[in-house]
Amino acid sequence: MQLGLCSAILPDLSLEAVVEFAAEAGFECVELMCWPPGKAERRYAGVTHVDVTELDQGEADRIKAVLHEAGVSISGLGYYPNPLAADEEEAAFYIEHIRRVIAAAPMLGVTVVNTFIGRDPRKSVDENWPVFQDRWPPLAEFAGQHGVRIGIENCPMLFTEDEWPGGKNLAHSPAIWRRMFEDIPSEHFGLNYDPSHLIWQGIDPVAPLREFADRIFHVHAKDARVDVHRLDDVGVLAHPLQFHTPKLPGLGDVDWGRFFSVLTDVGYDGPVCVEVEDRAYEGSLERRKAALIQSARFLRQYMA
Amino acid sequence: MQLGLCSAILPDLSLEAVVEFAAEAGFECVELMCWPPGKAERRYAGVTHVDVTELDQGEADRIKAVLHEAGVSISGLGYYPNPLAADEEEAAFYIEHIRRVIAAAPMLGVTVVNTFIGRDPRKSVDENWPVFQDRWPPLAEFAGQHGVRIGIENCPMLFTEDEWPGGKNLAHSPAIWRRMFEDIPSEHFGLNYDPSHLIWQGIDPVAPLREFADRIFHVHAKDARVDVHRLDDVGVLAHPLQFHTPKLPGLGDVDWGRFFSVLTDVGYDGPVCVEVEDRAYEGSLERRKAALIQSARFLRQYMA
Amino acid sequence: MQLGLCSAILPDLSLEAVVEFAAEAGFECVELMCWPPGKAERRYAGVTHVDVTELDQGEADRIKAVLHEAGVSISGLGYYPNPLAADEEEAAFYIEHIRRVIAAAPMLGVTVVNTFIGRDPRKSVDENWPVFQDRWPPLAEFAGQHGVRIGIENCPMLFTEDEWPGGKNLAHSPAIWRRMFEDIPSEHFGLNYDPSHLIWQGIDPVAPLREFADRIFHVHAKDARVDVHRLDDVGVLAHPLQFHTPKLPGLGDVDWGRFFSVLTDVGYDGPVCVEVEDRAYEGSLERRKAALIQSARFLRQYMA
Amino acid sequence: MQLGLCSAILPDLSLEAVVEFAAEAGFECVELMCWPPGKAERRYAGVTHVDVTELDQGEADRIKAVLHEAGVSISGLGYYPNPLAADEEEAAFYIEHIRRVIAAAPMLGVTVVNTFIGRDPRKSVDENWPVFQDRWPPLAEFAGQHGVRIGIENCPMLFTEDEWPGGKNLAHSPAIWRRMFEDIPSEHFGLNYDPSHLIWQGIDPVAPLREFADRIFHVHAKDARVDVHRLDDVGVLAHPLQFHTPKLPGLGDVDWGRFFSVLTDVGYDGPVCVEVEDRAYEGSLERRKAALIQSARFLRQYMA
Amino acid sequence: MQLGLCSAILPDLSLEAVVEFAAEAGFECVELMCWPPGKAERRYAGVTHVDVTELDQGEADRIKAVLHEAGVSISGLGYYPNPLAADEEEAAFYIEHIRRVIAAAPMLGVTVVNTFIGRDPRKSVDENWPVFQDRWPPLAEFAGQHGVRIGIENCPMLFTEDEWPGGKNLAHSPAIWRRMFEDIPSEHFGLNYDPSHLIWQGIDPVAPLREFADRIFHVHAKDARVDVHRLDDVGVLAHPLQFHTPKLPGLGDVDWGRFFSVLTDVGYDGPVCVEVEDRAYEGSLERRKAALIQSARFLRQYMA
Amino acid sequence: MQLGLCSAILPDLSLEAVVEFAAEAGFECVELMCWPPGKAERRYAGVTHVDVTELDQGEADRIKAVLHEAGVSISGLGYYPNPLAADEEEAAFYIEHIRRVIAAAPMLGVTVVNTFIGRDPRKSVDENWPVFQDRWPPLAEFAGQHGVRIGIENCPMLFTEDEWPGGKNLAHSPAIWRRMFEDIPSEHFGLNYDPSHLIWQGIDPVAPLREFADRIFHVHAKDARVDVHRLDDVGVLAHPLQFHTPKLPGLGDVDWGRFFSVLTDVGYDGPVCVEVEDRAYEGSLERRKAALIQSARFLRQYMA
Repeated sequence: MQLGLCSAILPDLSLEAVVEFAAEAGFECVELMCWPPGKAERRYAGVTHVDVTELDQGEADRIKAVLHEAGVSISGLGYYPNPLAADEEEAAFYIEHIRRVIAAAPMLGVTVVNTFIGRDPRKSVDENWPVFQDRWPPLAEFAGQHGVRIGIENCPMLFTEDEWPGGKNLAHSPAIWRRMFEDIPSEHFGLNYDPSHLIWQGIDPVAPLREFADRIFHVHAKDARVDVHRLDDVGVLAHPLQFHTPKLPGLGDVDWGRFFSVLTDVGYDGPVCVEVEDRAYEGSLERRKAALIQSARFLRQYMA
Repeated sequence: MQLGLCSAILPDLSLEAVVEFAAEAGFECVELMCWPPGKAERRYAGVTHVDVTELDQGEADRIKAVLHEAGVSISGLGYYPNPLAADEEEAAFYIEHIRRVIAAAPMLGVTVVNTFIGRDPRKSVDENWPVFQDRWPPLAEFAGQHGVRIGIENCPMLFTEDEWPGGKNLAHSPAIWRRMFEDIPSEHFGLNYDPSHLIWQGIDPVAPLREFADRIFHVHAKDARVDVHRLDDVGVLAHPLQFHTPKLPGLGDVDWGRFFSVLTDVGYDGPVCVEVEDRAYEGSLERRKAALIQSARFLRQYMA
Repeated sequence: MQLGLCSAILPDLSLEAVVEFAAEAGFECVELMCWPPGKAERRYAGVTHVDVTELDQGEADRIKAVLHEAGVSISGLGYYPNPLAADEEEAAFYIEHIRRVIAAAPMLGVTVVNTFIGRDPRKSVDENWPVFQDRWPPLAEFAGQHGVRIGIENCPMLFTEDEWPGGKNLAHSPAIWRRMFEDIPSEHFGLNYDPSHLIWQGIDPVAPLREFADRIFHVHAKDARVDVHRLDDVGVLAHPLQFHTPKLPGLGDVDWGRFFSVLTDVGYDGPVCVEVEDRAYEGSLERRKAALIQSARFLRQYMA
Repeated sequence: MQLGLCSAILPDLSLEAVVEFAAEAGFECVELMCWPPGKAERRYAGVTHVDVTELDQGEADRIKAVLHEAGVSISGLGYYPNPLAADEEEAAFYIEHIRRVIAAAPMLGVTVVNTFIGRDPRKSVDENWPVFQDRWPPLAEFAGQHGVRIGIENCPMLFTEDEWPGGKNLAHSPAIWRRMFEDIPSEHFGLNYDPSHLIWQGIDPVAPLREFADRIFHVHAKDARVDVHRLDDVGVLAHPLQFHTPKLPGLGDVDWGRFFSVLTDVGYDGPVCVEVEDRAYEGSLERRKAALIQSARFLRQYMA
Repeated sequence: MQLGLCSAILPDLSLEAVVEFAAEAGFECVELMCWPPGKAERRYAGVTHVDVTELDQGEADRIKAVLHEAGVSISGLGYYPNPLAADEEEAAFYIEHIRRVIAAAPMLGVTVVNTFIGRDPRKSVDENWPVFQDRWPPLAEFAGQHGVRIGIENCPMLFTEDEWPGGKNLAHSPAIWRRMFEDIPSEHFGLNYDPSHLIWQGIDPVAPLREFADRIFHVHAKDARVDVHRLDDVGVLAHPLQFHTPKLPGLGDVDWGRFFSVLTDVGYDGPVCVEVEDRAYEGSLERRKAALIQSARFLRQYMA
Repeated sequence: MQLGLCSAILPDLSLEAVVEFAAEAGFECVELMCWPPGKAERRYAGVTHVDVTELDQGEADRIKAVLHEAGVSISGLGYYPNPLAADEEEAAFYIEHIRRVIAAAPMLGVTVVNTFIGRDPRKSVDENWPVFQDRWPPLAEFAGQHGVRIGIENCPMLFTEDEWPGGKNLAHSPAIWRRMFEDIPSEHFGLNYDPSHLIWQGIDPVAPLREFADRIFHVHAKDARVDVHRLDDVGVLAHPLQFHTPKLPGLGDVDWGRFFSVLTDVGYDGPVCVEVEDRAYEGSLERRKAALIQSARFLRQYMA
């Protein structure tokens, strides 16, 4: 495995500065954010460390050199929009940009692109399914043609009232993953596995590593703490941030020893990228960097 | 406390037969269903053991005599529609019938009427709130005028996809109860407390007994079993019946010893009515009766 | 379900006395022991409440009348020898008697015969398997021909050094049951499910009820207490009675509420027979009877 | 074992009425309170169902006849003062009355007298010890001469500030029992074992049954609930009633199945007397009787 | 947060040596002990790394230079006597020295002084309260005048028989802190929060971080292990060291991940000083230094 | 304590390379494997980092110099055959080689030799015992004469069917250790304590540290994960590798904080050697080295 960081938490740093920091802090890889340039739509989005809208091989080579020099690799390219948005024009824009990220990957020597399935949050899973069946097979095929594996992050994208009730990403549970992979059996279609989202859904974050071992293309190391005193007040029907808090690895409910124990046993040997979404560590760039360093220190006891 | 049964599970029995069975089985009281005569809209609904649309004092006296003779009392009248239905006409019908049930109670010497707040399931709690604030204060006042305490059952009315996403009853968590009682502080407005619905919401079903002691007008004894193996597959964002199963008292996750321990300490001395919604016991009238008898046997070890 | 008792604990009572006691104590059925007349080979064995070696229809009718009169039914016939004994002559004797018990069942109007697979305790499961494959298919077929379902009890028959290392019954774990039913898919071949033996093997005694629902022909209600302080001293490689104690239902580690919760959900509607093997209750006939009565009282809170 | 009741909760009933109620409610024995006639010093004290200050054989025979007629036996005589009171005169009075209770026992055909060791609450265990060594050996010897076994109840007699810091009874932990029995090895000196007091002290209430099996002369069936939310506020250094609540059996933290499981295994065959000290059930005589009946129903599932 | 060490464990080192070691071992700050010069009264007391009895600004500047040069800051000044001692003269001496420590702080550029409330151990909390109300308001006011925040450590100072029954520091539970801050609402009066003392009192060491967030001025990182096998023997009424053992962070029952998880969320950004009171690491200066280094290594995985 | 590594995992490295790696990776000591040169009989066996068959003082001095130069000490010599093998010739060979290892130790300045008791796996513990009593006292005496303490590793040597049923090492439980030390009370006869083997036997791996404190001569730091989903399928009677997985420290069920907490308290100050038997880390030499480095990083948070 390779310990890495997700660059989304460092939007104010240039690619060069991200890579330099990663190297200094002992990270072996980075997941580089590839949002289209412009204003972020939501927290942690809109970060452009690689601008795939203008990427040519020359620029790609320059980026590769920056990384090579620092001894840091790219774990994957990341772009997390809502390709199943109800607004078809909006969805088309997202899908088009996902294609650009996929196309950029081989130029950068990268084989993994991470994203979301998306969802119309006002509709049920079943109601969204035909749209998934319509929009995703071409994307998976496109990825296969480019030698790229798509890692779908298992985040429900459901935190507060504005994403209620369904959230903006279908791919949030093992039952749904199973259904996804039945419909798209392509081996270029898999998961960017983040255990933290399973914690507050009441799902064992370790057991699925066995069943979906072949589908895990990328791992996000993030944690989450269920706040039992708040859950006792609002229950699981409340907006999820009312009863849980995203935290750095080691500061939440994920049992990381057990997680890495099984992750090693199922033969995973890819990247594990720290994703910082812990508001207690977001007050300044220095603090965000410190969060990454602390997380690395924590995770290294379980990673070779 | 008085051990009772909810008559909804015995729709095929006449009032007389319900009361006779209750007496024979050792129940001290019954919650009598008062749906308007006609076809049931959903499972466990549409039961009319007292027809309040035609009730006059003569008929009420006759009913009282039936109960008196059997040595069984009426714990409350029950009617559980959706007074916050999006369709205003539909809602108006429900509200009008709730008023009829309230008006019937004093004729029967009954002081408790149990029902739901209701909810437009397609809207969030906040979006429903103004409608609650519009429709419920008059009902609470009407109840007060008739010396009737309204027990709102804390069921989310969210089990399968057709009730998704919000369910048909707002009153499902302590946080929401607090908000309800802040807006309607009337002492005729309280809870018909059913611990089973809290179990699968991840809410401690015992702790709220302390804070809401003065608001508990009626108790439903039902249980629920969280099916961890299914929860691990679907998570709490799934339709609730995908990860839990309603069961008879003692066959679920409620810790009834702890429940009655605190219930006695907070001074509750009202009815505890067995509500059977356990599909394993619904194959025949005989089986439903057996379910009630078994539940009573189980509960009696914790009740004086 | 029907609450019953296993007659093995009442060897000093005649069939008539067993049935009379069962009726008085409120049991609805009895599992009648059918060992060949003679001396018991081990504790709880060698009991003959029905002597199938000499049974003709006349005697069978007499027995049926005894039961009919008392309002008690026969849940099954029981005979628990070691049909895979290393000594072929010994095994042949056991198998012959099993056939006699099977043949007796229809005469008595009984459809379930309970027994063991057996095992050569000095050999591994794999080493025993060919013998199983040799001896059992004819028995299963014979049972099918007589309309009898064979309930294999899941007891490892491994308690003390004399049964070490493998015990005298292969059928002790879900993995082995699966293998058994793959080799003998006959629907006349199933389980006499006893949760107590799973407890000390570290196996969840409830989960298999789902997978093997169709194979559960009979249930033994016995409990077992793992003695953690002794387990901490000897570990699971010790002889099992060194770290656990068989007990009456309610006095061990089986979670009976959860057990009956799932048992009802999978649709089991057969007998549940109390099997007393609790040495603290075996001092006298009176005490053994009291054990049965206490067990019934405990179980009735979970059984309709 | 024999299920009984402690008569202290029925101070307003005559001996005859206590015994009649016990018989009707299915109790097999009673522990009769033998305080000197007069005013109670504290809750649950000062009850005189047998006045040993005036007992002669005639009166004793009359009492025995009352019990015999009802088919109820005397499990023991109870008197729970503070024989180690700092005030020597006071202590002497208590000791003298204990002697009278002991002397009365054989007249009534009773072999167990239950009481406290006592303690000067302002002094540590070590500081109290010499007084114990001075006052108790003669009492144990006196008991032996009368064929009476003294059952010391293991209650710390420390509930509120007025008994702070040490409580009024040394005999509250296994470590102290061991020390007691080393100093007074007499087989007429043992325990009236009440698991509830161990619960809130953080002591496993079951394990000591094994070590002290030979010393358990009598058992009190009472329960206690540790109130975790209050403990979290005040901690174990607070007055014990600030973090726990005495309750009826089944309404507290004692695992009664496990308790009776081990109690049967160590061969205990004496009385188990329900002791009601649950304020939620003390509002009226009717309610106290109901508490006894409920407790009996609960305990019977674990007792033959 | 800043990781620091409490200098009490290094009494044999000069201030310079303490600071040098802290810097080398990667600590960012030190809590400096300020006992009056002379012999220690008890373990971990009597350490004088800053002698405030003779401090003038020149000496203070010299000390500041020592720290500045090493790049280590002073987290607070520490002096932990019993200002509520029953002996008024003794108490007056302690209070006078606390004032000297407070007065010294601004000279050293330090804003936190850590100490105890104290207690007359022979008296109850209520009996001590008037003395608290008499002696502490002037101290809090004096601290406010000097711009110093007083951090009261939450140690009960109750370990063995000599401190029995009440210990020498009232401030041991959330309930008492609440009372303290009601009586002295000054924002210069708060806590030096040590989770280890809550562990053995049965108090959740994390939950109070939320309620008392604004009062936490300093944190001690110490751990404690409840020895369940000993607690089962003696119970919570025993002297606390009979059932628990103070240990280094990571070797006890504090869940440090959860502790830092909430500590970061409530916005704490002050010092966290390792306090070594683990007898297994006190055999030599080298071993005590090693204990500090090990503790730092452990804590750094949870601290930025 | 000294952190070390067991050289068995580095069979492809020369002694010099092992020592060099150990020094670089920050290990303070190594347990050197001393199998007779030749082919390994099983996984992890047959490693010869010191060839005691040809050792003379000159070679010993050369080895000592290698270690001295690297600043690494020898924690013990290791050789783990089956001295109770049923084949007497085979056993004699093992015993003879154990004697050679013992004799080599003082030449190398080493005082600990680690090995197994051995066992005839087809026989019960009791059946093996006379052979133990025959073969081991002379070995213990021989060790004493050489100033060597023998550390018996507590591995059952029972993993798969070929070692069934008894495994190849008697010394697997506290009960058996007690018996061993009663028969051979020599203070040169003790344990090489490995907590991982206790985990899957259901034995608390920490509690025995107290009773056997004086017998612990060496510690192996290995972990094991009980795979509950597999245990639920096969139970504890299955071959142990069917329900557990050996893992690196931190990736299994050992609570290392609690382990070191008690290990420090009982005064252990010897070596703690990482033993890698985690198949997920055995793919290459680089990976095995990484496993050792990761393990050291994990353990250092609990070790000074």
